[in-house]
Amino acid sequence: MAGSTFGTIFQITTWGESHGKALGVVIDGCPAGLPLNEADIQQYLDRRKPGTSSIATQRKEADSVEILSGVFEGRTTGSPISLMVRNTSQISSDYSEIASCYRPGHADYTFDQKYGFRDYRGGGRSSGRETLGRVAAGAVACKILAQLGVTVCAYTRSLGPVEADMTRFRRQAILNTPTAMPDPEADKAALRYLEQAKQDCDSVGGCMECIVEGLPAGVGDPVFEKLDANLAKAIMSIGAVKAVEIGDGHQVSLRYGSENNDGFRMTDGKITKVTNHAGGILGGISDGDTLILRAYVKPTPSIFRTQHTVNRELSEIDINIKGRHDPVIVPRAVVVMECMTALTVLDAMLLNMSAKMDSIAAHYGRPHTPVQTS
Amino acid sequence: MAGSTFGTIFQITTWGESHGKALGVVIDGCPAGLPLNEADIQQYLDRRKPGTSSIATQRKEADSVEILSGVFEGRTTGSPISLMVRNTSQISSDYSEIASCYRPGHADYTFDQKYGFRDYRGGGRSSGRETLGRVAAGAVACKILAQLGVTVCAYTRSLGPVEADMTRFRRQAILNTPTAMPDPEADKAALRYLEQAKQDCDSVGGCMECIVEGLPAGVGDPVFEKLDANLAKAIMSIGAVKAVEIGDGHQVSLRYGSENNDGFRMTDGKITKVTNHAGGILGGISDGDTLILRAYVKPTPSIFRTQHTVNRELSEIDINIKGRHDPVIVPRAVVVMECMTALTVLDAMLLNMSAKMDSIAAHYGRPHTPVQTS
Amino acid sequence: MAGSTFGTIFQITTWGESHGKALGVVIDGCPAGLPLNEADIQQYLDRRKPGTSSIATQRKEADSVEILSGVFEGRTTGSPISLMVRNTSQISSDYSEIASCYRPGHADYTFDQKYGFRDYRGGGRSSGRETLGRVAAGAVACKILAQLGVTVCAYTRSLGPVEADMTRFRRQAILNTPTAMPDPEADKAALRYLEQAKQDCDSVGGCMECIVEGLPAGVGDPVFEKLDANLAKAIMSIGAVKAVEIGDGHQVSLRYGSENNDGFRMTDGKITKVTNHAGGILGGISDGDTLILRAYVKPTPSIFRTQHTVNRELSEIDINIKGRHDPVIVPRAVVVMECMTALTVLDAMLLNMSAKMDSIAAHYGRPHTPVQTS
Amino acid sequence: MAGSTFGTIFQITTWGESHGKALGVVIDGCPAGLPLNEADIQQYLDRRKPGTSSIATQRKEADSVEILSGVFEGRTTGSPISLMVRNTSQISSDYSEIASCYRPGHADYTFDQKYGFRDYRGGGRSSGRETLGRVAAGAVACKILAQLGVTVCAYTRSLGPVEADMTRFRRQAILNTPTAMPDPEADKAALRYLEQAKQDCDSVGGCMECIVEGLPAGVGDPVFEKLDANLAKAIMSIGAVKAVEIGDGHQVSLRYGSENNDGFRMTDGKITKVTNHAGGILGGISDGDTLILRAYVKPTPSIFRTQHTVNRELSEIDINIKGRHDPVIVPRAVVVMECMTALTVLDAMLLNMSAKMDSIAAHYGRPHTPVQTS
Repeated sequence: MAGSTFGTIFQITTWGESHGKALGVVIDGCPAGLPLNEADIQQYLDRRKPGTSSIATQRKEADSVEILSGVFEGRTTGSPISLMVRNTSQISSDYSEIASCYRPGHADYTFDQKYGFRDYRGGGRSSGRETLGRVAAGAVACKILAQLGVTVCAYTRSLGPVEADMTRFRRQAILNTPTAMPDPEADKAALRYLEQAKQDCDSVGGCMECIVEGLPAGVGDPVFEKLDANLAKAIMSIGAVKAVEIGDGHQVSLRYGSENNDGFRMTDGKITKVTNHAGGILGGISDGDTLILRAYVKPTPSIFRTQHTVNRELSEIDINIKGRHDPVIVPRAVVVMECMTALTVLDAMLLNMSAKMDSIAAHYGRPHTPVQTS
Repeated sequence: MAGSTFGTIFQITTWGESHGKALGVVIDGCPAGLPLNEADIQQYLDRRKPGTSSIATQRKEADSVEILSGVFEGRTTGSPISLMVRNTSQISSDYSEIASCYRPGHADYTFDQKYGFRDYRGGGRSSGRETLGRVAAGAVACKILAQLGVTVCAYTRSLGPVEADMTRFRRQAILNTPTAMPDPEADKAALRYLEQAKQDCDSVGGCMECIVEGLPAGVGDPVFEKLDANLAKAIMSIGAVKAVEIGDGHQVSLRYGSENNDGFRMTDGKITKVTNHAGGILGGISDGDTLILRAYVKPTPSIFRTQHTVNRELSEIDINIKGRHDPVIVPRAVVVMECMTALTVLDAMLLNMSAKMDSIAAHYGRPHTPVQTS
Repeated sequence: MAGSTFGTIFQITTWGESHGKALGVVIDGCPAGLPLNEADIQQYLDRRKPGTSSIATQRKEADSVEILSGVFEGRTTGSPISLMVRNTSQISSDYSEIASCYRPGHADYTFDQKYGFRDYRGGGRSSGRETLGRVAAGAVACKILAQLGVTVCAYTRSLGPVEADMTRFRRQAILNTPTAMPDPEADKAALRYLEQAKQDCDSVGGCMECIVEGLPAGVGDPVFEKLDANLAKAIMSIGAVKAVEIGDGHQVSLRYGSENNDGFRMTDGKITKVTNHAGGILGGISDGDTLILRAYVKPTPSIFRTQHTVNRELSEIDINIKGRHDPVIVPRAVVVMECMTALTVLDAMLLNMSAKMDSIAAHYGRPHTPVQTS
Repeated sequence: MAGSTFGTIFQITTWGESHGKALGVVIDGCPAGLPLNEADIQQYLDRRKPGTSSIATQRKEADSVEILSGVFEGRTTGSPISLMVRNTSQISSDYSEIASCYRPGHADYTFDQKYGFRDYRGGGRSSGRETLGRVAAGAVACKILAQLGVTVCAYTRSLGPVEADMTRFRRQAILNTPTAMPDPEADKAALRYLEQAKQDCDSVGGCMECIVEGLPAGVGDPVFEKLDANLAKAIMSIGAVKAVEIGDGHQVSLRYGSENNDGFRMTDGKITKVTNHAGGILGGISDGDTLILRAYVKPTPSIFRTQHTVNRELSEIDINIKGRHDPVIVPRAVVVMECMTALTVLDAMLLNMSAKMDSIAAHYGRPHTPVQTS
């Protein structure tokens, strides 16, 4: 319970440090019979791979995934799926200087306080490379969801003050722009903003958004395991995220009820909502509409300016951070948000299968008289 | 696992519906030896009690708590503490009209989709009364935290556009103003705003904030069980919350790294931060500074205007909601936020006790040589 | 996590002490749509009720159960079901003498060591009355299992040296004999044995057995969550049980593989086993055959003889236990074994629903091509 | 939740199949600051390594463990420890014949029923090689326990009818006899018994025992998480175990209370028990005495005789099992029992740290007035 496990039925456990031998994940509870190979996973890992653009760290890693267990003759067997990525480009000497000092905005100080010491190489377990395991497992979750008709899509909503214009939304742009913005024009403006920040030896923040389409109504639980509560945890657990929103998010605090309520209507014989301020969740349970999530990300704490701080020996010092760092985290974190969302939604769907006596009886071949309400 | 349990070591399970016989909570894992009586809990329940001001529902409930187990001779025994509050003022007839229709902004439709039918009286399990169990358990958590030198304090930060001026912060005002604002002047302005909304048969939203003081550095876990991730889940699981923030929250997306990093300094021989944009958490672990959380709450969905919606028989209809409803949820939800925060922080502190070999060896009377880093 | 919660999907949390105000259980994760009323539960509680025969404690308790939540218009809603039984016949004065001494065979000493003090009245939380919550919840599990075609039946296999002759097995006898033996002749012999023990101011042990019929093949998980592993935990968690067996149990250690293997055969077009040494489980997963479990129970530790022991002040003393005690635990524990087995089997069946992509796709209306093996 | 995770604070997740690329385990929640290297783990793996004696399978595997994460500069960091063993001697062709048939006593049929198909090579996930991860993780648990003064020791108690004479108990013999018996004379007799069984193309069962010394009183929880309940689950989860006992086990059913109660006495100023029929646990909590556990193991189901069974196509057939199989499982399973016991006991010790307000207050530097009982 040191917190490297996520999920109840589709349960993942990640491991590995930035500059250790390898990183990986074990997926326990993956249903049997899913066609799966390394390429399914690699395409997701490639989206968070470093060294691919001028706004990403220049550390070069192949990040090639190996399936070590749980797949036989091209299909998942129901046994744990162990996925591993070897580190190949560690340059730990970059970090020897900062081994004993506490970088502002990083977890150096808090790790030392919790554990008594820390693996200081590249942030160790608190590095962004920790998300490799999340993405590898999320790729499997996304594949299952796709078979169930559910798609998950995350993108950069804004970088600093530059926001995507959603009327220009093009899904292909997310994968093809360096910023992962769905609006190519905003992408260009954002790149200019980033370039300026790099010249100033500074870093920037931003906002990422994720939408889930095709999710049936009725998924999620009331009270503590609300679908939005679990999504909030999943997204807030991504390093550097400082705020999470569902639907209209913080803007609802300025609304009147008459503005914010989403009325129900009949459309083609089905119940729909006129608007979607709620972001697809009511009372913790999906309402059949598109899920909408937003995460606000702080600027990369590693900046190439002299910073004043403190070291383990309790002296104040000036430090200059070396190493290879992204001037902005958002574009590479988008796929992490997509994967954490997929893991959360899939787990809720699996848990949901036993919510009704009818479903259980049907599964076990014992037809059951459904509930009649007066 | 239908989601009514929260916490790992200090674990609570809530039960009960708005118009059922009773509501309650079982606390399992409360340490032995804590002095505890009903009054300790009642003072927290009274803060969320309905019928106490013109801006709260007029339903009158004593909400008197009974301790059924787990306390012997005035102290907790380590056995489960069962707490119960009887419902006394249910008027279910108010709800007969809406039994078959889906109120906008409520969980009626999603409960029917998930479970096949629902207890429609007063929202059943999705009612705000569900939080009684959270508050009763949270009162116990707060008492333990107080003994450990940790205090938790939540208040209304804003109602609609009316925001508290934090330079006028007075802790006593939180308990004494109808709005639970710490700024008496903002309280008055907010009441005028609320009065207007009531006259318009409308409801309003707002923002609540919670601060935790005295929490030592080193509490919380990296990766999925980050302290901020668990707080995000805890707070987002409160009905009507649509956004959760830590520290500067969504504003970090507009910052440069050079602005947002909190430098470390030595103060009176101790490590401190110059600023607290991070809200007291770095890498998922507390940094010894004040925890700062914010939750944005939607306007009460029950409004006294005609609304167009759909019923179980898939017909569009107009409805007029009766019953007794708060025009704003925030003032009564503040104590719920305080309690959910306390439950989360306490659980993290208990889990944290076994993070280091030194601590374990000390607990079991086996002194251990602490780790020396080079 | 003080250990009063059991199960993953169908999850129960029990609370209450022998001489407190009440005892109870919260069931979270009960599927919606099950017809349920107090009588369904009361009939199970009546089987463990004290005061009904000469071989049970003379404490008189109605043990009337009250459903406090989770049932609406006669059916479960999917929300937590809170069940409570008030204590009415506590005579705590019986225990004042032993408040400070450690009774042999009881948990007095270990509770003091763990918690620093204890609720000494009637054993507090370690009393046999703690099983009230297990039985109330187990009654609900049994009702669901019955709807799925699965029956669970426990009985007394032996008391001291007197063993039931299984060729005389009559299911009705279990409910109608004071010993809960399925063999009326063995019942009579056992009563004579018990009468002698009572005259000698002594107590006796015994063995209980439980069979599960109608369980489909394929339920349970490999590795740590094996169905037999979870059953072993469930049964060993019943106070006074010192050994648990599956199928032929400890006798397999004397067998040759050629004797112990159960060959498969075709019977009426279905796969069956020629023998059932395995007790219905292979590799942790049900094989479609009858589950067979056995639990060995120690003699009641409360005996009416002078015993030499130690008190809290670390002095050796002689004690004479008063109070009202069963000379044998087994007959009243049989229904507890039945209920713990039902809870375990039901939970495994619910978890099992998401084991295959086919089942998931079918549940969500997305037909999936089943796996073809070469 | 497919059941490959064990433990609450010290939590392990195993993965891998008999004939896959590798097997391993991730330990999450290992305290920081423990000196650890591969040799610490390898010595435990070597005890279960195949090919080392005439009574073990002739499959040759180095079973060399690699530490992939969680250790830095020779000490655990508190981050997940990933351990991996590559398979090197898979001969899958041995299994092609049995790919479509159901071997008696194996999990072939139940895996097919649960998952729709299976990795048939060497039993896949249900192979005894699955225990590699358990033993690797258990080695770490044993090292921590040793630092806390707790030792765990398992051995072969009997093979078929040949039982170790405990008056001849020599701890060194356990590691040095092929049977892992602590009695060299019984070892010789057992080898003769095994030799005969091999000549008869048969296999045999046996009993293993485990003792835990140095465990303080007060560890474990009442009700469902009793220490004995968790041990029963841990031990029953080892393949081929059909019965688990604590203390005197099944023999208590024949006892009188006056024989079975262990009286307390003062010895050198400390509370002790005169006898230890209870096996060191009262009411689910350790009593400071030696823990005693026993597990009864069925004969290896793979025997070199023609067996009649059924195949996937529902035809009855005769099969002859090839491959490399142990004629008895017990000697190599002893270290697995030792490791599962260590994992269970350590986890209970870590959970126990927060049982009392005093301990929590002491840990956080807030001295607390201990409970005074009248």
